[in-house]
Amino acid sequence: MTSAASPAYRRLSVEERRGQLLEAALGLFAHRAPEDVSLDDVAEAAGVSRPLVYRYFPGGKQQLYEAALRSSADALNRCFDEPAEGPPTERLGRVLDRYLAFVEGHDAGFSALLRGGSVVATSRTATIVDEVRRAAAEQIFLHLGARRPGGRLAMAVRTWIAAVEAASLIWLDEDGRPPAGELRAWMVDHLVALLAASAASDPETAGVVRRLLAQERPGGPAADLARRLLPLADEAARLL
Amino acid sequence: MTSAASPAYRRLSVEERRGQLLEAALGLFAHRAPEDVSLDDVAEAAGVSRPLVYRYFPGGKQQLYEAALRSSADALNRCFDEPAEGPPTERLGRVLDRYLAFVEGHDAGFSALLRGGSVVATSRTATIVDEVRRAAAEQIFLHLGARRPGGRLAMAVRTWIAAVEAASLIWLDEDGRPPAGELRAWMVDHLVALLAASAASDPETAGVVRRLLAQERPGGPAADLARRLLPLADEAARLL
Repeated sequence: MTSAASPAYRRLSVEERRGQLLEAALGLFAHRAPEDVSLDDVAEAAGVSRPLVYRYFPGGKQQLYEAALRSSADALNRCFDEPAEGPPTERLGRVLDRYLAFVEGHDAGFSALLRGGSVVATSRTATIVDEVRRAAAEQIFLHLGARRPGGRLAMAVRTWIAAVEAASLIWLDEDGRPPAGELRAWMVDHLVALLAASAASDPETAGVVRRLLAQERPGGPAADLARRLLPLADEAARLL
Repeated sequence: MTSAASPAYRRLSVEERRGQLLEAALGLFAHRAPEDVSLDDVAEAAGVSRPLVYRYFPGGKQQLYEAALRSSADALNRCFDEPAEGPPTERLGRVLDRYLAFVEGHDAGFSALLRGGSVVATSRTATIVDEVRRAAAEQIFLHLGARRPGGRLAMAVRTWIAAVEAASLIWLDEDGRPPAGELRAWMVDHLVALLAASAASDPETAGVVRRLLAQERPGGPAADLARRLLPLADEAARLL
């Protein structure tokens, strides 16, 4: 009754109202640590009363945080979608460009989530984060043409994902240095180098790397890395 | 009075008793998730009463967990000590052998700590873990001869540390496969490959890699990786 009478409260369907509150929460949780977001902040950002927020999210801040996290996880998963066409390093570059734009758009929230020790961190939030990691790995396996990768290849991909997360946190700490384009190129180089090193001791990975190389083009990122590594290879030759 | 009268309670100094309780807690927290350790378990493992545990650790399980974590962090930091002599990849191999033995000796506790979402995870426990990561990075910078590394070199080292953590968790999940020696060799290869890839776009890292290469010996891990990479380099040559 009160809400219908108040001019500030437009008539919204249950789903619309829920979406509006979630949107407000997302905006706040993206740029602040969860500790620094209160239910009053969410109510204010949505232009509604605190009791109304509780009516839609009876679990309060924890429930809002988890709903916002799930929505962000979905958005992040969409960044990973990339057609399996063209040189693999260029596909990876496009995915990483979208990923880094996401990280930049969720700075403080992204850091707080992955740093751990937050008041809203639970086994449920850890599970959501793990699901995103798993989805990222699945996408990479798809592009590598290895749907059921062996232990070594799987470990290389999953540890690279952890390295990308760590690099993203450092990048946020360093106020976006190096520029996103340079960071993306380095992340691509990192995976290429890691797959090459793993290929040196694992036949499955060696086969994958050969198939990937065959899809690269002269002058592309893989060729560029190989060219820049030549002087170092010359120096390493004395060890052989 | 009671404790002096009871035959089960030896007379221990305050420090000895504290050490004994901490030792019991360490043993439990190493092989179980913190959720699965109760104060009664600690009291039982130490052969004392629950009130006695509270007398020494009034903060209960949380305080015991943090004390155990700090003690484990110190033990882990000691693994990183390695004289700056001989081929760098062999130094790194020895540090990683000690590190992997530590991981194996703290299986469930190590996983629970790094996975996050645990009931005892706080900003204080996150800080202790971060201090260990920082100490590990400092040790590596020392061996690289780069006490004040630039952004790119620092990012390479710190992301490799994150990758090693991730690989350790996967290794525990996979019941210790691959064998520790193979995992250690792969971790060394990973850092060599990552530094080489970073050297391709960062002059400071290129200088560091040159100095490191000059300290490697024919037939050592770096030479072995270079030799195993030759067939792949031949295939990459068509891109140049």
